[in-house]
Amino acid sequence: MSEFTINFEPLGLRGKCKNNESLLECARRSGVGINSICGGTGACHACRVQVLSGTVSRPSTVEYKVFTSKELKEGWRLACQTYPISDCKITVPADSMTTSQRLQVEGLEKKVSPELPFQVYHVKIAPPSLETPVADADRLIQALNNQHRLRCTSVDIDTLRDIPGQLRSWNWESQVVVRNKEVVTILYQKSRQLGLAIDLGTTKIAAYLIDMNSGQTLAARGIMNPQINYGEDIISRINKVIKSSEAAVVMQRLTLDAINELSADLCAAAGARPEEILETVVVGNTAMHHLFLRLPVKQLAFSPFVPAVSLALEVRARDLGLNIAPGAYVYLMPNIAGFVGADHVSMLLATDAWKAKETTIALDIGTNTEVSLIYGGKITTTSCASGPAFEGGHIKHGMRAAAGAIERLRIDGDKVQYQTINGGPPVGICGSGILDALAQLYQANIIDNSGRIIDSHPRVRVHKGQREFVLVSEEERNGKPAITITQHDVRELQLAKAAIRTGIQILLDISLCSEDDIKQVIIAGAFGSYINIDSAVAIGMMPSLPLNRFQQVGNAAGMGARLALISTRSRAKAQAIASRVKYVELASSPEFNKVFVQANYLGPYQITNK
Amino acid sequence: MSEFTINFEPLGLRGKCKNNESLLECARRSGVGINSICGGTGACHACRVQVLSGTVSRPSTVEYKVFTSKELKEGWRLACQTYPISDCKITVPADSMTTSQRLQVEGLEKKVSPELPFQVYHVKIAPPSLETPVADADRLIQALNNQHRLRCTSVDIDTLRDIPGQLRSWNWESQVVVRNKEVVTILYQKSRQLGLAIDLGTTKIAAYLIDMNSGQTLAARGIMNPQINYGEDIISRINKVIKSSEAAVVMQRLTLDAINELSADLCAAAGARPEEILETVVVGNTAMHHLFLRLPVKQLAFSPFVPAVSLALEVRARDLGLNIAPGAYVYLMPNIAGFVGADHVSMLLATDAWKAKETTIALDIGTNTEVSLIYGGKITTTSCASGPAFEGGHIKHGMRAAAGAIERLRIDGDKVQYQTINGGPPVGICGSGILDALAQLYQANIIDNSGRIIDSHPRVRVHKGQREFVLVSEEERNGKPAITITQHDVRELQLAKAAIRTGIQILLDISLCSEDDIKQVIIAGAFGSYINIDSAVAIGMMPSLPLNRFQQVGNAAGMGARLALISTRSRAKAQAIASRVKYVELASSPEFNKVFVQANYLGPYQITNK
Repeated sequence: MSEFTINFEPLGLRGKCKNNESLLECARRSGVGINSICGGTGACHACRVQVLSGTVSRPSTVEYKVFTSKELKEGWRLACQTYPISDCKITVPADSMTTSQRLQVEGLEKKVSPELPFQVYHVKIAPPSLETPVADADRLIQALNNQHRLRCTSVDIDTLRDIPGQLRSWNWESQVVVRNKEVVTILYQKSRQLGLAIDLGTTKIAAYLIDMNSGQTLAARGIMNPQINYGEDIISRINKVIKSSEAAVVMQRLTLDAINELSADLCAAAGARPEEILETVVVGNTAMHHLFLRLPVKQLAFSPFVPAVSLALEVRARDLGLNIAPGAYVYLMPNIAGFVGADHVSMLLATDAWKAKETTIALDIGTNTEVSLIYGGKITTTSCASGPAFEGGHIKHGMRAAAGAIERLRIDGDKVQYQTINGGPPVGICGSGILDALAQLYQANIIDNSGRIIDSHPRVRVHKGQREFVLVSEEERNGKPAITITQHDVRELQLAKAAIRTGIQILLDISLCSEDDIKQVIIAGAFGSYINIDSAVAIGMMPSLPLNRFQQVGNAAGMGARLALISTRSRAKAQAIASRVKYVELASSPEFNKVFVQANYLGPYQITNK
Repeated sequence: MSEFTINFEPLGLRGKCKNNESLLECARRSGVGINSICGGTGACHACRVQVLSGTVSRPSTVEYKVFTSKELKEGWRLACQTYPISDCKITVPADSMTTSQRLQVEGLEKKVSPELPFQVYHVKIAPPSLETPVADADRLIQALNNQHRLRCTSVDIDTLRDIPGQLRSWNWESQVVVRNKEVVTILYQKSRQLGLAIDLGTTKIAAYLIDMNSGQTLAARGIMNPQINYGEDIISRINKVIKSSEAAVVMQRLTLDAINELSADLCAAAGARPEEILETVVVGNTAMHHLFLRLPVKQLAFSPFVPAVSLALEVRARDLGLNIAPGAYVYLMPNIAGFVGADHVSMLLATDAWKAKETTIALDIGTNTEVSLIYGGKITTTSCASGPAFEGGHIKHGMRAAAGAIERLRIDGDKVQYQTINGGPPVGICGSGILDALAQLYQANIIDNSGRIIDSHPRVRVHKGQREFVLVSEEERNGKPAITITQHDVRELQLAKAAIRTGIQILLDISLCSEDDIKQVIIAGAFGSYINIDSAVAIGMMPSLPLNRFQQVGNAAGMGARLALISTRSRAKAQAIASRVKYVELASSPEFNKVFVQANYLGPYQITNK
């Protein structure tokens, strides 16, 4: 019985596909989570993938309906309808991935030519002798300068401690890593040159192990940010630190331990050692950036909400307690403002939104949502307190994107169709499911445009004095409590939606743009990337634009970090972006209240007397 | 009753002098140790001082005999014969100081114009506002660059942590310390700018607190190097580290704690805070340098005895655990070889010996003795294992220079005259006393030139099977054991003397110089500075030259450290010196054995068949 090797990109996962096994089945067995609402019958069209190389079965009748002939030519297929007949390489696009994986590490892939922040030179030196008893490091530097025409003048102290032992055990031959005229590390001649890119989110940390010379991602992994025990959102963590300086130390330690662990895991996966990591890039929002560096955060919490620093920083890894190569550095991308951090710069960099010629909205939806309008060569940016509702917070049956969460949902008459993460029985509803629910309820006229639940639908009931819509009933859950959307939930979602829309709208207003002027909406981040744009447009969270103007780019901040890791030119661009942005404090806009009230209605945003 | 203020230089100590009180009495009450063998009768001439300013009593008859009229005009006096009649400023030369003080911190004083390794700028910035919510550090750097036309680009991470709180509490005004385009520290506008110079000896640590702008020494202090518990000499400490890497960590910690304590003491004495120390310079021998930095030392112990590094280093103070200003650096002067360290470079720098036009020998006597010959524009340097005898080690009644140690000694017929440190009853004999004893015994023919004790003198006896010379008898000590010089002691001293003389001689030999060519002998270091040159010449440890060719310069290494602290030009010179030195490995010289045997004889060195 023949068996093929299937490479799933961009996850870098590999699986064995048996004869007569569909790509979907192979993916599941291999730990690659591909969407499937219909269970593999070809009905839901959620399992779209692109076959990059290899031979597969011919398209089915269903697929001829789903895809254009151009798309089929490009290799687009439904995973459930496709049977490999050779080794294959498959791309799983972000919106075909189940949330559990999608939240972590994937996103758009972009290439830049490496222009490294350090250089690596091969050096062989003569052993010392009684005739020329020259110090080890001095001989190394002399040889480096003579053999490579450098003017390297110093050696990092930690590397200096390694030099005598290592040079002797390596027979006086090594790779020397030079950064700003300093020897920062010496490596065994066969060592790899790796880098680590970190997207440090309030909720999650995504880490990428990169081959510095090719720019290739060798391994990627995501985990929860352990700071979450100190508060789910930024403000509660900042308050903890203001109350106790000890908390700052503990929170930094938690994050660092997590990153050190991630890095060790990635290295294990790639057969590498953390000492081969020669540079690290960290992007995060301003609060995460400050907590990571143990910078003061008090001034972030009080008007005028300024960061301790916005400029890009290079900090010696050991000054933070990061276990990588001895003298290596951590590069921190620049921040923009107290509530618009390096992660937004990173996203603008990775998507090229910052230099868009057409009017562009670029946003990253989270507990805090950052929005940029790129128009006429200018970038205006604001930050909206969208709250945790779209992450499942403050929602009765809300939950994070984890196994059992309803992530896709359709109301069909008095039936509710849904898909859960990992396909098991439903236990709650996560962000993308919540958004779908709100849009479906609104479109089915079960709630009106003010957000009120109308009680004409068989699934609407009053429970403990509150009106609610039953997504999964007690019977459907075999006696367990029903999963519902309550009137209170709808109000929370309206506030979140209104906050985001207000951000977009005020940026448009002050630039004298209208919705129609927007040629491109780039949505980044975990939640934003896996939502149904239809749903977001339906409730008016997103502008009423043709769907093809929207791009969901996944973890663009993580991509930006990877670009900055290997490219000093990208770093220069990041600093240029941060310097060019005009930050707008939303609350200080005179239009704020009016816009916010208007944005609270469901349905397309109505421009009133302007 | 009138009372005058007396300033004792270079110690920086100040005393009140009562009417009819001699300078000697005032010095003693003020804690300034001035030599006095005769007890203040004007007989021993050991208490020479120079009156720099103020009015004192007219010279006594004794002083007219002791000093030339030129010397008297220059203010030279015997402290015991001089009575202040106004406030005075007095210089106490090194050889008039009692050993307990001399061992620590004094030495030649030399001035250079400060050319600091950092610049300090006064900056006032605008507070942030909602209209311009620019980050604190960014505003500081912008203001710095705009107000002072700099291109400063980064801020040290520790300083960054201080900036938000400090700028707010200082009303947005501060002194900014910039080093290599990096903000390393910010200071309150009225803070002082201080530096710390450390002479890190195997036995003692001398520390100087310096005003960086004037170069003035504000306070100086010395303590024992606590590493001494891990072995009195370098080799035993290195062996400890080779056996256990834990020992390296502990030894570094001990030294650092000691330096941090010294620095806190000096700051307390000067009314300053360690955070005002903006730069530190450390000089020491190669082993102390390596142990301080926790560099590997194994290669120092085995042929070809190379250092891990000889180049000058700049290490962030926090990387070593030194408590000074947040982002401040420690500068380590360059080493020359495994057994000739930065302290010797520092001495060559401070004495200007390195650029001597006349043939010069410069040496620093210790357990290890470093010798340089400067001749015809070339510097050749070697290192001799002189052992601990001159520090009281391996000598039956030897002791360190501490209270009760015999430090000066004269044999007068069958009497022994001596002076002890602090003037109390004798408890043993320290380096300078031991040297005097050897010379006096040889000159009185009590020992012959082979070192044998001849038993014709009434103080020579046989005790427990060994011949010895009684310096202080049981009766003279009221029944306590006698203090003696044994035959074994003489042998130890001969070995030490021979080692030093061999070093000098081999350098002369390979440069084809003779003793008479030497126009200048510069003797630095604790022991070397307080010995009687007469004694050293008498036994042949030093070349037979007129006494006026000898200079005893005290802690020249400490002086060099102070120069390098405030002067980048001095640092450049130090590197030039280290690079120019031709190091000679003594043991590899074919003449070594012959010269060493010859040098073992007491009396002037006899050149044999060359």
